[in-house]
Amino acid sequence: MTLPEKTVERLSQYRQLLMRYKYLDKPHIFSKDLARMLRINPVHVRRDLMLLGFSGSHSKGYDVQKLIDSIAIKLECGAGKNGCIIGFGHTGRAALEIFAENFTPIKIVAIFDTSAKSVNNTFYGTPCYSMDKLANVIEEKKITLALLTEADEDLETIKDLIIACGIIGILNLTHVKLDLPGGVYLEEFDLRTAMIKLAYFSTQ
Amino acid sequence: MTLPEKTVERLSQYRQLLMRYKYLDKPHIFSKDLARMLRINPVHVRRDLMLLGFSGSHSKGYDVQKLIDSIAIKLECGAGKNGCIIGFGHTGRAALEIFAENFTPIKIVAIFDTSAKSVNNTFYGTPCYSMDKLANVIEEKKITLALLTEADEDLETIKDLIIACGIIGILNLTHVKLDLPGGVYLEEFDLRTAMIKLAYFSTQ
Repeated sequence: MTLPEKTVERLSQYRQLLMRYKYLDKPHIFSKDLARMLRINPVHVRRDLMLLGFSGSHSKGYDVQKLIDSIAIKLECGAGKNGCIIGFGHTGRAALEIFAENFTPIKIVAIFDTSAKSVNNTFYGTPCYSMDKLANVIEEKKITLALLTEADEDLETIKDLIIACGIIGILNLTHVKLDLPGGVYLEEFDLRTAMIKLAYFSTQ
Repeated sequence: MTLPEKTVERLSQYRQLLMRYKYLDKPHIFSKDLARMLRINPVHVRRDLMLLGFSGSHSKGYDVQKLIDSIAIKLECGAGKNGCIIGFGHTGRAALEIFAENFTPIKIVAIFDTSAKSVNNTFYGTPCYSMDKLANVIEEKKITLALLTEADEDLETIKDLIIACGIIGILNLTHVKLDLPGGVYLEEFDLRTAMIKLAYFSTQ
């Protein structure tokens, strides 16, 4: 069964919170405390963990480490699908740092960039290739996920090329809208538009 | 009248697209072409521009430069509310670059960070202060918007402090959930959760 989108979002947040909570040396947590720390309804927490197939004890709550592991397994944070970062400016580097912290189910196995400073170097163990290696490396390394981080005149061409090479999911962090064929999953965030909305809707 | 959220998002996208389109030296554009380039329904484009109070010519379409200006005025891209960036890692730097490109109605007048390398330096003309200057600088420079970019143990304390000093809008780019009082506008994006969703929902 595929989990609902909101459940996946919240499971990801539970895991992030619990990984910090773990350092407090408390082995158990109650759903109402998890809910309070994330400012959400405890009913959502209980339903999400039920969908995960995870149950706690009435007297002690949920086992923190087991819950972290269980979410990790469900979201495949251990296995790791191969991904690449296309464009290695600040946004690409922020994404690589998250991968390096081991917080993500995406194993970044390649970076692509145009800058002579980055190409042929490795970052957190991940090699950076020039853009003309895109098709070959994606096929050779069986990469299925791509993070697009730099708006480029050729973004449409790049998109067509990487989908032809086997990319089935794209996280588009540029301000360019992409038209994707069916079967390719898209997540997107445009920092420019977020800043414009922040300015427009923040009023005294 | 406050525009609907989706209209503000799309106006921001129209403007970004038109600023690139302008370089093609075409002075006019039809709503159907704008819609096609953004892969949206032309009805939305016409309704958004009507809400903006902008009208085109049946034979020539919309005047590109006037449309850019009109969106900029509506979204106050010229005026610029004062904003600050709190945390100057890769995400903070990506936001500052957008400000430097003049694409945003937020005028970044201060950066706050803990790193000795950044503090007391200026970046694109914007000074970077140490975190203990937060309250003073926000009040002195009449800053109303804050971009939070680094998850910190003290994020809750920072949030309470900046709201007490006059912040009325927060763009939270960390993975920490914030509980905000009424009257403070929140935009948020968590790159970790986006990467987890990408991996989970991309399936062959």
